[in-house]
Amino acid sequence: MAPARTIEIPQTGLESRLAARNLTWDRPTCGMAPGYLQANLIVLPSKAAKDFEILCARNPVPCPLLAKSASPGDFNSFVSCASAVSNEKIAAGIDIRTDAPRYNIYRDGVLVEESIASVEKHWQSDHVALLIGCSYSFENALAAAGLTPPHVLHERNVTMYTTNIPLCAAGGFVGGKYVVSMRMYRASEVERVRDITRPYVTTHGEPIAWGWDGMRDIGIHDLGAFDWGDAPVLADGKPVIQSEEESKDGGYVPVFWGCGVTPQEAVMKAKTPGIVIGHAPGHMVVLDVKEEDVLRK
Amino acid sequence: MAPARTIEIPQTGLESRLAARNLTWDRPTCGMAPGYLQANLIVLPSKAAKDFEILCARNPVPCPLLAKSASPGDFNSFVSCASAVSNEKIAAGIDIRTDAPRYNIYRDGVLVEESIASVEKHWQSDHVALLIGCSYSFENALAAAGLTPPHVLHERNVTMYTTNIPLCAAGGFVGGKYVVSMRMYRASEVERVRDITRPYVTTHGEPIAWGWDGMRDIGIHDLGAFDWGDAPVLADGKPVIQSEEESKDGGYVPVFWGCGVTPQEAVMKAKTPGIVIGHAPGHMVVLDVKEEDVLRK
Repeated sequence: MAPARTIEIPQTGLESRLAARNLTWDRPTCGMAPGYLQANLIVLPSKAAKDFEILCARNPVPCPLLAKSASPGDFNSFVSCASAVSNEKIAAGIDIRTDAPRYNIYRDGVLVEESIASVEKHWQSDHVALLIGCSYSFENALAAAGLTPPHVLHERNVTMYTTNIPLCAAGGFVGGKYVVSMRMYRASEVERVRDITRPYVTTHGEPIAWGWDGMRDIGIHDLGAFDWGDAPVLADGKPVIQSEEESKDGGYVPVFWGCGVTPQEAVMKAKTPGIVIGHAPGHMVVLDVKEEDVLRK
Repeated sequence: MAPARTIEIPQTGLESRLAARNLTWDRPTCGMAPGYLQANLIVLPSKAAKDFEILCARNPVPCPLLAKSASPGDFNSFVSCASAVSNEKIAAGIDIRTDAPRYNIYRDGVLVEESIASVEKHWQSDHVALLIGCSYSFENALAAAGLTPPHVLHERNVTMYTTNIPLCAAGGFVGGKYVVSMRMYRASEVERVRDITRPYVTTHGEPIAWGWDGMRDIGIHDLGAFDWGDAPVLADGKPVIQSEEESKDGGYVPVFWGCGVTPQEAVMKAKTPGIVIGHAPGHMVVLDVKEEDVLRK
């Protein structure tokens, strides 16, 4: 996550997109353009995109839809899907085929190419791009309140788990489950953490579960058995305390949020026919929207 | 459900609200004002209403928020909370204290008065009314397609169950579960039923589970052990087939939708402090919004 020494870190959404387009930035976008919203990307054939939009409308906590292509095939102009986002402020001059630092390609729901720099040759006239909120926003707010997530302190990826919580079905997207990200906090901090992240309704919002009973309720029985990201750590960098018994000394509990990996999981589960494009994990599309714009008053 | 013989059935939202206000209509609103949207009602103290609005935003399938009081204490003017609903079309001249045929009163989350005709003396200057979508809309669409729900055919209340699906928490509303309504269909009809109800995203939309495995997945193990409404029937009026084995002859399976009882359950679960007002089940607020206005294109 350390910035390259020889290039400047882009400070705005536009600078970030141009750096990705010009191939001067090909690494994760964590820490780029502070205060600007970063987005998860899914590009789908238009029929699947229509169902996927309904999937987002029905499951806004893991899949908070921000904007979509103005029409099928359009990689330059986007329309807002969130009341807090105005069409003008999404991303001026964007080319969604080049403006994420890295992309993944799926064919019929199977990952076939990984971490490529542009998708101009994969783009189809029937493709619709969807931009979905990302938890970097509320992580900045937690840090500002002195509650920096442990994985950020230790420059690790956040830990992610599949749960037993069903996504509400939408057309071809049936049988999906919520994916959650997990951050360890002291039990005494949980209510503050909830309050700080609550206004970020368009970027996953407040936690959906917390504590050891809460963990088991959503079908997670071992924090060490994570599905994506890095192994979890505590604020002091030690491995997490794995059980209720062991946690009594430190007072730490796991706290779980809806996670932007859910959309890509849904695509794999649905075996969506044709070519689907996603950003490579961590390599987000940076928008012109500011975090303060989407805060619920 | 049979209309009174001596009074006319109101044919518009306005007529329905005036009939409730004038005490000429005190029965369930099923069948009233065909084509007009009917709404579930929850009135909360403003602090709880703020959390509840986030609960709806995070759980739109069981809790699709349509509109709310323009400001705390306002029982006459409403503002839209759904992009498909314009402020002007919500409910002209409404008085939410009198315009539902019957109300229930909760104190600190406990039901204390049932089926009263008006709530003028219970209304407080800090109260906020929230109007939430109702499944009557998609039931009309199913009937128009020759798939009238069995309980409608036999003039019974729909059967409702609590599930194991957690509501995404919001402020004081923690630990709630989805309530679902259930309608029996032949397995061969399920995809049509899904397609017909899918566009009704602001009134619970398409089913969230179906079939015998789907039933067990959401924590229901006996269709006879329902939590609200009447015992389930088949289209021919016979009691439902209770098991996968017995269903093989008839080919019937249970189909489950998010249900507007969920909000009242959430209030009881949260033991919301102070006075909360709900409509009496089945005694909805009829709006000026037409069903066609909220259909997703």
